[in-house]
Amino acid sequence: MTQVVEKLKRLASESIVAPKGFSAAGIHCGLKHKKKDLGIIVSEVPATVAGVFTTNAIKAAPLVLTKETVYTNEKMQAIIINSGNANACTGKQGIEDAKKMQQLTADKLGITPNLVGVSSTGVIGEKLKMDKVEAGIAAIEAGNKLENAIDFAQAILTTDTVMKNTAYSIEIDGKEVVVAGVAKGSGMIEPNMATMLSFITTDAAIEQKELQALLKATTDITFNAITVDGDTSTNDTVLVLANGLAQNNPLTPAHPQWGEFVKVFHLVSQDLAKMIAKDGEGATKLIEVTVDGGVTDEEARKIAKTIVGSPLVKTAVFGCDANWGRVICAIGYSGCTIDPTNIFIKIGETAVVENGEPIDFSEEQLTNYLKNHEVKIYANLHQGEGSGKAWGCDLTYDYVQINATYRS
Amino acid sequence: MTQVVEKLKRLASESIVAPKGFSAAGIHCGLKHKKKDLGIIVSEVPATVAGVFTTNAIKAAPLVLTKETVYTNEKMQAIIINSGNANACTGKQGIEDAKKMQQLTADKLGITPNLVGVSSTGVIGEKLKMDKVEAGIAAIEAGNKLENAIDFAQAILTTDTVMKNTAYSIEIDGKEVVVAGVAKGSGMIEPNMATMLSFITTDAAIEQKELQALLKATTDITFNAITVDGDTSTNDTVLVLANGLAQNNPLTPAHPQWGEFVKVFHLVSQDLAKMIAKDGEGATKLIEVTVDGGVTDEEARKIAKTIVGSPLVKTAVFGCDANWGRVICAIGYSGCTIDPTNIFIKIGETAVVENGEPIDFSEEQLTNYLKNHEVKIYANLHQGEGSGKAWGCDLTYDYVQINATYRS
Repeated sequence: MTQVVEKLKRLASESIVAPKGFSAAGIHCGLKHKKKDLGIIVSEVPATVAGVFTTNAIKAAPLVLTKETVYTNEKMQAIIINSGNANACTGKQGIEDAKKMQQLTADKLGITPNLVGVSSTGVIGEKLKMDKVEAGIAAIEAGNKLENAIDFAQAILTTDTVMKNTAYSIEIDGKEVVVAGVAKGSGMIEPNMATMLSFITTDAAIEQKELQALLKATTDITFNAITVDGDTSTNDTVLVLANGLAQNNPLTPAHPQWGEFVKVFHLVSQDLAKMIAKDGEGATKLIEVTVDGGVTDEEARKIAKTIVGSPLVKTAVFGCDANWGRVICAIGYSGCTIDPTNIFIKIGETAVVENGEPIDFSEEQLTNYLKNHEVKIYANLHQGEGSGKAWGCDLTYDYVQINATYRS
Repeated sequence: MTQVVEKLKRLASESIVAPKGFSAAGIHCGLKHKKKDLGIIVSEVPATVAGVFTTNAIKAAPLVLTKETVYTNEKMQAIIINSGNANACTGKQGIEDAKKMQQLTADKLGITPNLVGVSSTGVIGEKLKMDKVEAGIAAIEAGNKLENAIDFAQAILTTDTVMKNTAYSIEIDGKEVVVAGVAKGSGMIEPNMATMLSFITTDAAIEQKELQALLKATTDITFNAITVDGDTSTNDTVLVLANGLAQNNPLTPAHPQWGEFVKVFHLVSQDLAKMIAKDGEGATKLIEVTVDGGVTDEEARKIAKTIVGSPLVKTAVFGCDANWGRVICAIGYSGCTIDPTNIFIKIGETAVVENGEPIDFSEEQLTNYLKNHEVKIYANLHQGEGSGKAWGCDLTYDYVQINATYRS
């Protein structure tokens, strides 16, 4: 990730329709009371597709269908997404409903169903109101303006408080290549579990095998490095569509600018992952944990995620409490190789632990630092060359309220 | 656990000095502001000892010392415990201080130091005020009355809201054998992680090897089957002292009443484990999850613990929300063998999921059930003969408050 990328720029529009040939829309079809609840992404031409999906053994119907589509077809031209209902634990009817969403979208666009992905997010265990969805698909019209992308970004939210968009451009083979992404995070409009959906669009030309490998590797260090409450949902999905309209030479690891594309792809994924962490249910702060000196990168990342997932660390950050004892305790129960007498810990720029023992620091200064909306925790284990990062959020009264009081 | 035990009775006194030859005390020595903070358990004669200790790689100094004592000596006659300071992450000075507590207690009782166990609970990373501890050990006098046991039970608490005591008697070889236990749970008087300490006393005669094996097996299905917030502390300890003064024939698996003793030992451990779960920080309810039909007992127990540890299940129980979607989701991400289409779930006596799909139930009736202080969740996976139980508590505003606001 240290490679210099020429002409990299973050696009102010942050729009998934910024890459050539993509359009989108978001409308209200009636699954939620008032808010937008149906979105669509369309590519002018069939795009190379890659996807990663939840590891939960209970998988929502649309996820099962879309996973199969990605794996068997390797091309996708449109994605239809509803919020307000996860279409999970809905049995055979759920599969029928997801297939019908796929078919209706294909018919509308005049393409084959195996070019359409389907995603859902919302309450578990309720049948989809298919009359609403059917009318919505008939009504929705994708466009390539910024407002269309914003409508889409809004239509996939549940209790997220903000939209999550990002976009970058670089030059590859003298052509402008754009990579853009949109996501929804942890929230619920019906009492339910957090569901993470992300969609990445790019006009880059790239082989499917390479795109899938890149997505998997990038997901491990971005989307899989965040945690809000440790509950892995039934619907988690990341899909990438690469339609090739930038007309660069097809990207593979042999391409001289492969490293630059990887860097941009990583930036888009990391931006979205951090936005999801920061907007975790009830969160007031983003927590970023960096671990160096692990035996391997995997162990360093696991320790970082253990720290950022500890309810005691999360409540301490919420309460602006410089409680490093909870950080070292989490390192201890991470299950990784450590030497208790060789641990260094720093919160912000303030060192608090050296050789596993407390050192003097200004409590007042650190309490002030913890009032920031982004809090950084750093640990060095001095065991090897492994490094890793993870992101999460504080644990607050509002998390309890959001998840306890919905139907009471 | 189905064996009938003759003449089993729960003792109303619930006292760790109920078994013959045990005495105890609890006093205030000055580590806390006002409350009792130093406790002692003494056996008239050296007792067979067994112990299980935290799996956290960061281990508190007294735990390291006591673990070594248990493993090398196999006998123990006294345990000295302080609350208010965990003596963890305190380096060489911490080890010196733990050894000094051991030596002072041995000198006072006129026994060798390797017959004394040491435990601490409280804030991490601060040196013990040894002048207070030394004066406390000089002053503390163990007695065998109920009030002495109560003083002890109070002296080991941190933010626990109630004492945790239990005691049973049975007849073995025509002799009355008593097994009693005391514990502290999840709490902190300084901002810190939960620390679980349990001490079990019995006048049974039993070999050390058998006692250690029994403690390990019982801990797996009792103390290790509870969770409050998923943070494994640096100080977790369970110690059993068996002084043999009941004069039964030494217990081994070959003894005709071995099964009865196992049953009573299990009851004592389970009582304490449930009390700890119920008194978890901020908790208003005990949650008991039973899982049948797992591939193995281990998998059933792991699934039960995953359900009871899910923040979304915990907040739903707090909010009296019959949100079975969160239960099935937790089953899905438990990492165990399941068939999504073959899951049965019941909350209280109300079936909510059959064959992995929702069934009709009275929302009102279930919401009323969830107002109880003890909530039972049952799942049958229909995969095999494995069964398991786990206990936890709801996640409330008070959990966040206790852990966020201490020093702010």
